[in-house]
Amino acid sequence: MWGIELRDKSEISLARQIFLTLKQRILAGQIAQGEALPSTRELAKGVGVSRNTVSEAYDMLWTEGFIVSRQGAPSRVAEGLQITSGNAAPNPERTKEPTPILWDFKTGQPDLSLFPRQLWSQMIGQAASHLSVRQLAYSSPRGYWPLCEEIAHWLLRSRSMEVDPEDIFITSGATQALHLLVDLLYREGHAFALESPSHQGIRTVIGDRGYPLHWMPVDNQGADISTLRDQNVAAVYVTPSHQFPLGGILPAGRRAALIRLAMANDFYVIEDDYDSEFRYAVAPVSPIYSMDSSRVIYVGTFSKTLFPALRLGFAILPKPLQARWKHHRMYMDVQNPILEQIALAEFLNKRKMDKHVQRMRRVYGEKRNVLLRSVERSFGSSVQPWGDVSGLHVALQFPGMEFGESFIRACREAGIRIASVSQYCSIPGDHQDKLLVGYGHLSHGQIEKGIEALHEFIARGVEGS
Amino acid sequence: MWGIELRDKSEISLARQIFLTLKQRILAGQIAQGEALPSTRELAKGVGVSRNTVSEAYDMLWTEGFIVSRQGAPSRVAEGLQITSGNAAPNPERTKEPTPILWDFKTGQPDLSLFPRQLWSQMIGQAASHLSVRQLAYSSPRGYWPLCEEIAHWLLRSRSMEVDPEDIFITSGATQALHLLVDLLYREGHAFALESPSHQGIRTVIGDRGYPLHWMPVDNQGADISTLRDQNVAAVYVTPSHQFPLGGILPAGRRAALIRLAMANDFYVIEDDYDSEFRYAVAPVSPIYSMDSSRVIYVGTFSKTLFPALRLGFAILPKPLQARWKHHRMYMDVQNPILEQIALAEFLNKRKMDKHVQRMRRVYGEKRNVLLRSVERSFGSSVQPWGDVSGLHVALQFPGMEFGESFIRACREAGIRIASVSQYCSIPGDHQDKLLVGYGHLSHGQIEKGIEALHEFIARGVEGS
Repeated sequence: MWGIELRDKSEISLARQIFLTLKQRILAGQIAQGEALPSTRELAKGVGVSRNTVSEAYDMLWTEGFIVSRQGAPSRVAEGLQITSGNAAPNPERTKEPTPILWDFKTGQPDLSLFPRQLWSQMIGQAASHLSVRQLAYSSPRGYWPLCEEIAHWLLRSRSMEVDPEDIFITSGATQALHLLVDLLYREGHAFALESPSHQGIRTVIGDRGYPLHWMPVDNQGADISTLRDQNVAAVYVTPSHQFPLGGILPAGRRAALIRLAMANDFYVIEDDYDSEFRYAVAPVSPIYSMDSSRVIYVGTFSKTLFPALRLGFAILPKPLQARWKHHRMYMDVQNPILEQIALAEFLNKRKMDKHVQRMRRVYGEKRNVLLRSVERSFGSSVQPWGDVSGLHVALQFPGMEFGESFIRACREAGIRIASVSQYCSIPGDHQDKLLVGYGHLSHGQIEKGIEALHEFIARGVEGS
Repeated sequence: MWGIELRDKSEISLARQIFLTLKQRILAGQIAQGEALPSTRELAKGVGVSRNTVSEAYDMLWTEGFIVSRQGAPSRVAEGLQITSGNAAPNPERTKEPTPILWDFKTGQPDLSLFPRQLWSQMIGQAASHLSVRQLAYSSPRGYWPLCEEIAHWLLRSRSMEVDPEDIFITSGATQALHLLVDLLYREGHAFALESPSHQGIRTVIGDRGYPLHWMPVDNQGADISTLRDQNVAAVYVTPSHQFPLGGILPAGRRAALIRLAMANDFYVIEDDYDSEFRYAVAPVSPIYSMDSSRVIYVGTFSKTLFPALRLGFAILPKPLQARWKHHRMYMDVQNPILEQIALAEFLNKRKMDKHVQRMRRVYGEKRNVLLRSVERSFGSSVQPWGDVSGLHVALQFPGMEFGESFIRACREAGIRIASVSQYCSIPGDHQDKLLVGYGHLSHGQIEKGIEALHEFIARGVEGS
């Protein structure tokens, strides 16, 4: 099939041989852009290997951008990859296809290729084979109780947090927790206070509802709390362990001030701890929740430590909010599916999480080092990283530069997907000299070559201007 | 452990032997009310059987109301079961524990003990072991594409519906679909029209938002559409295949009138098809969706055909709503977990759904017959079922009677959980002579004895009054 000839005795794995052959055929135009690849099952049969081998080869093609795939639909060859002349090439002049993404610095992308899929599959299989009749029924909008207990243990082990499992509520990722909280906490005549810059998701959730917003400026230590003093706020959303996207750690003084204000002005603090597992320096930052669990709602997710399509996260709620939370969740989607909850409880119980996070911390830490070395090699020491040494992305400051929308668009047209910090800001003119570089999902080589490409692009622009 | 002695050669299964021994110990007060049973793992080890065997025994205890369980927490012995004197019996006079439910006629409860758990576990296991790296990532708020295609095929096979899979959007059960639709369809100054009586869920979703409601009265053919004529409505919610809870089938004339009104007054119709799989008479009722797919949003669920903790359902959306739906879902919880979607696609593809629904249709049909015979035996022919011969519950009319809140409460205190239709009505004084009897989850014996108990309770009341 498609001239794939495999050598069993090769040093190169079968999956990689398939990958290389297909890549070559695609670049040569022998498999045309937009063409559907056979299903993994079909190709496995045709070539005489296991389906997993083909799947692995397709994953490599996907990771490198040779194929695009919609969940479950046939994988198709990406546009604009052909580099030697094929047959019947279309007029390249005015075909307005988007440029393929060659260097993708998207933020918040974990390296899914290192997720222990086989181990997870075993845990899922075991959970499925022990499903009791009772577990098939509705249980509770709180979530599976042993998972709440295991999360409490995990938070103690990983962040020294002491949490009553009765206060833990399972959600479909942090997104659902935030969606629910916004409705729960809204009060007529009160605003939601957000950091500027902040994640687009939370801004959209609140903005869609038409609720008023108050913006707190952010410096390299996180949010400036002082602007809250004279505001009527229903809730304050912060990312104190690793400000998104600038990376600052909110200092103790600001934390205490925030709690005092929350008490005095009767509002809640939403603490989004989206990636503090991956801290490469010293001990973990202890969350604001540990300072005052009556005013702080802590939101966590497994999308980055495990994988996004798992759809599991949680919120830790002060008691007065719990009854209304349950009511809201009940009429929103009732509860999470049971199976993933059982498997995750087991994954935590068996300390597999600890091991996986430890491994990924090392992997991401190395990637970060590669990134910072590449930046220094290309740009010299004037370009500096902001914020804490943690997470899956870094904000880079380019003194004297301004990255507007047109820069980001031109970058994209040159095949580089990157964001500027100002895209996340709601205070005009803020942080215009910073770019956001996501590296969690990239290989060392991709990071190095990507930064070189970015440097080349910027240098061309500076020369041209 | 707890004097469980098993006989290997017995005609009675090991699970049943454990069940019988525990039941006896509970009734004798040797295991006290409120006491926690050991975990299935622990007891399995103690008695020397497999964990599945113990789990099966616990399921039997749970089904018959001997134990109560919160998902994953230890199962505990239910209150008030002891029938012989135990040690240190508490003063029975003024302990205000709720009466245990002896006869539970709750509606909408499928018989989960007949769900093919082993087959499902295989399909889950297979899906898990083939999870690709790409499937771990976010995919799309639409849902897993092959599942959309399989649902389209299933709707064609089971209901003769022709649906473009591009219009199918996967949800976490019908609840999420309705929650999303209410926000999507709301327009300032327009009401949502609901049937009275109707399901509490949809009333709460709309009521919580503070959106205005318009009530349509229901007769034995379903909703009376004529009241809509002079109303400003954003959407009309109906259950045309089997009105909930009265059971009527909306006649073609009313359907056509509804569509004409929707076109003239620019509103959408939400068609909730919550249980029409289980129709015991002739061919399936064809949905309103088949009359006009541009004005009708069809909502389906797998909670009743498969199991509620699966959290899978879908909505079929007219094109103009799709972009906003995706936006809403994206900021609500992004998407469903991937695993159940893959397994369900396979379950449908392999025609396992067809087989399971066929089997359950027979099972529920028999239960319904047992119920109606029991009703006739106890109450004579004056008490009549309403509506279509389908579903997991039936509305019974008791001419001349009035079932108010105090009746329902007294019933509950006598150990019978049952609902009156008037509890679901928003038009005062409506349908006061009807009770709702759910039978999907009950055994033939439970149905027969439950109806006898209900008859006795009512007869006592009539004598007493």
